[in-house]
Amino acid sequence: MTEGDIIVPSNSRPEFADQFEAKIYWLSKEDLLPGRVYILEAVGGKSEATISKLKYRLEKDGQHQIATNTLSDQQYGVSNISLAGAILYDPYSMCNAMGHFNLLDKFSGEVVAEGEIHHGLRRANNVHWQRLDIDKQSRANIKHQVPKIIWLTGLSGAGKSSIANLIEKKLIAKTRHSYLLDGDNVRHGLNKDLGFTDADRVENIRRIAETAKLMLDAGLIVITSFISPFRAEREMARNLFDKGEFIEVFVEASLEVCEKRDPKGLYKKARAGEIKNFTGIDSPYQPPEHPELVIDTVTLTLEQAADKIIGYLEAISG
Amino acid sequence: MTEGDIIVPSNSRPEFADQFEAKIYWLSKEDLLPGRVYILEAVGGKSEATISKLKYRLEKDGQHQIATNTLSDQQYGVSNISLAGAILYDPYSMCNAMGHFNLLDKFSGEVVAEGEIHHGLRRANNVHWQRLDIDKQSRANIKHQVPKIIWLTGLSGAGKSSIANLIEKKLIAKTRHSYLLDGDNVRHGLNKDLGFTDADRVENIRRIAETAKLMLDAGLIVITSFISPFRAEREMARNLFDKGEFIEVFVEASLEVCEKRDPKGLYKKARAGEIKNFTGIDSPYQPPEHPELVIDTVTLTLEQAADKIIGYLEAISG
Repeated sequence: MTEGDIIVPSNSRPEFADQFEAKIYWLSKEDLLPGRVYILEAVGGKSEATISKLKYRLEKDGQHQIATNTLSDQQYGVSNISLAGAILYDPYSMCNAMGHFNLLDKFSGEVVAEGEIHHGLRRANNVHWQRLDIDKQSRANIKHQVPKIIWLTGLSGAGKSSIANLIEKKLIAKTRHSYLLDGDNVRHGLNKDLGFTDADRVENIRRIAETAKLMLDAGLIVITSFISPFRAEREMARNLFDKGEFIEVFVEASLEVCEKRDPKGLYKKARAGEIKNFTGIDSPYQPPEHPELVIDTVTLTLEQAADKIIGYLEAISG
Repeated sequence: MTEGDIIVPSNSRPEFADQFEAKIYWLSKEDLLPGRVYILEAVGGKSEATISKLKYRLEKDGQHQIATNTLSDQQYGVSNISLAGAILYDPYSMCNAMGHFNLLDKFSGEVVAEGEIHHGLRRANNVHWQRLDIDKQSRANIKHQVPKIIWLTGLSGAGKSSIANLIEKKLIAKTRHSYLLDGDNVRHGLNKDLGFTDADRVENIRRIAETAKLMLDAGLIVITSFISPFRAEREMARNLFDKGEFIEVFVEASLEVCEKRDPKGLYKKARAGEIKNFTGIDSPYQPPEHPELVIDTVTLTLEQAADKIIGYLEAISG
C-alpha cells in the first residue's frame, strides 16, 4: 500500500469509465457551457472533461426536470460528462467518496462545480477504435502536401472571409488540396440547429474543430473562417491537433474600423437592437494571446495578408 | 385576385421566413424525431421541414417547461423549425389562419402534428451565402476525379467496416483521394455528445451526411460506414446531394448470420440486456428499397464485395 491507494472489498471493485451521467451543482458566476473543456478532479483520477449533454435543470423541490441550455450559479442539473481519459469511480449512491468530483476552470483553477456520478455510460466501452490500414500520412502523401489547419479568428468585418477566399484561390493555383470551412457552408448545413447564444457558439466551434480534424485526417489543408470569439474554444480546437498542425491567425481590426466597414450591414442592425448576442456589441471577443500570426488588415491589403499566411504555411511545411 | 391569394391590410403584411419558433401539438403514435424531414403545410406555403431544436415539452398546466428529446402522442412542445424554402406567415398571436400549420409524414402523408408559429428567427436572414471563387468542380479537377458518396448501410456484423477499409485501400492504390467516415472517427469526436436513442441516431446520421457533403464539396470520394437503420434518414442524406452523387450500398446479411459472426461481441451483450437500443434486437432496421447496389456478404468475399463497389463507382464516373 502506498499513499493514495484505494482499499475496496474484492467483490465491489470500482469501475473505469470516460463517460458518465452525473448530477451537477454549479458554483460559478459564469454560466456552464456544454462543450467547453473543464478539469475534473476525483479520488479516482483527474482529466479534462466536457459536459457533452446537459439533460435538464432540477428545480429546488427536485421534482421537475426543466429544459435548459446552461446552469447558473447555485443551480442543480443532470448531464452527461465526457472525459479525455478514463477515471476510476463508483456511483455516488454506492460510495460517496468515489462518486464525488469537482470541476475546475481550465485557466483560473477556480472550482466551478461539484458533482455526483450517477452511473457510467457503458455504451462508451462498446465503441472501439478500429485500426485502419489507410492513415493521415498515406492520404497526405498522394496529395504531395502536409495537411494543416489555418484557423482565422477576428471580429465580423475584420476581413476573414475575403482573406480566406484569396488563400484558397492561391492554394488551388499551386495545386494544393484545400477546403474552406466558413459560416456559409456550416450554418446552412451541419450547424443549422444552432443559434448565437454563448452555449450554441461553443457547440458551433466544437463541431467545426472536429470537422476540420476529419478533413486534416483526409490530408487536406483546411482554412476556417469564423469569429470564434472565445479563447477557451480556440484552445479546445488547437488541442485536437498535433503540435504544429494548428495555425491560429488573428485577423486584427479595431471595432471602430469593422463597424465603419460593416460589409453586411450587421453592426447597424446590432446597434439598432435587431440582432442580439452580436460579437463586439453585446457579446465579448477575446483576442488571441499567442497566435501563430497576426494580420493587421488596416495596414495590409487583402493580397498581402493572404501572401503572408501562405508564406508562413510553406515555411513550416518545409 | 386569383384563388389562393391572401388579402391583408397594407400596414401589416405577412413576412417570409425559413426558420421560426413554434408551439407543436404532436398527433402521431410514432414519436417526434428532431432532424427528421417532415412536410409543413400552411396557408402561406408548403415546404420540407425539420425540427431543428426541440426546446421543451409543456406540461398540461402549461407552466412547466420540461426537458425532452422527443414528443409523444398528445404532447405539447415548443421547438425551432427549419424549412427547405421560405413561407409567408404571421405569428399565430396576430393571425390564427396565417400562423397555423400542419406537419405531415413525408412518406405516408399522415398528419403528425399541428403547430402555431410564435415568431420568425430573424438571424436566419442575416446568414448569407457568399459566392466563392473556388468550387467543387475546381477542387475535384486538381484531384482528377469525380467526387462521390459511397453510403454503406446494414446490420452490425454485416461486414460494412471491413469492406469500407478495403475500398479505401484500393482507392488509395489507384491514387484516388478518398476518406472513410465511420463510427470510430465520428463517435469519438464530432458526435461524442450523442447516444443511441432514436432521436440521437437521427442527429448522428444528419451530422454525418452534412459532413460527407462538405467533404464531397472538397472533391473527395467519401465512404460512410454506419448502420444508418432508418429509411427516412438515408433519404435525407441522399437528398443533400446532386443526382448520381450518392451511392447507397446495402451490405446484406441476415440477423442470424450477423449474430453468429458477432465480431465485437455486441449481440451477446445486447441479448443479455447489457446494451439497449441495439439494432436488430430491440431497435429496428429498415432495409433499403431501391439501393444502387446490394452486396450479399454471405456469398461474396470481402475482396469481391470491394471490387464490385469500385467497379460500379468507375462505371458511373466515366
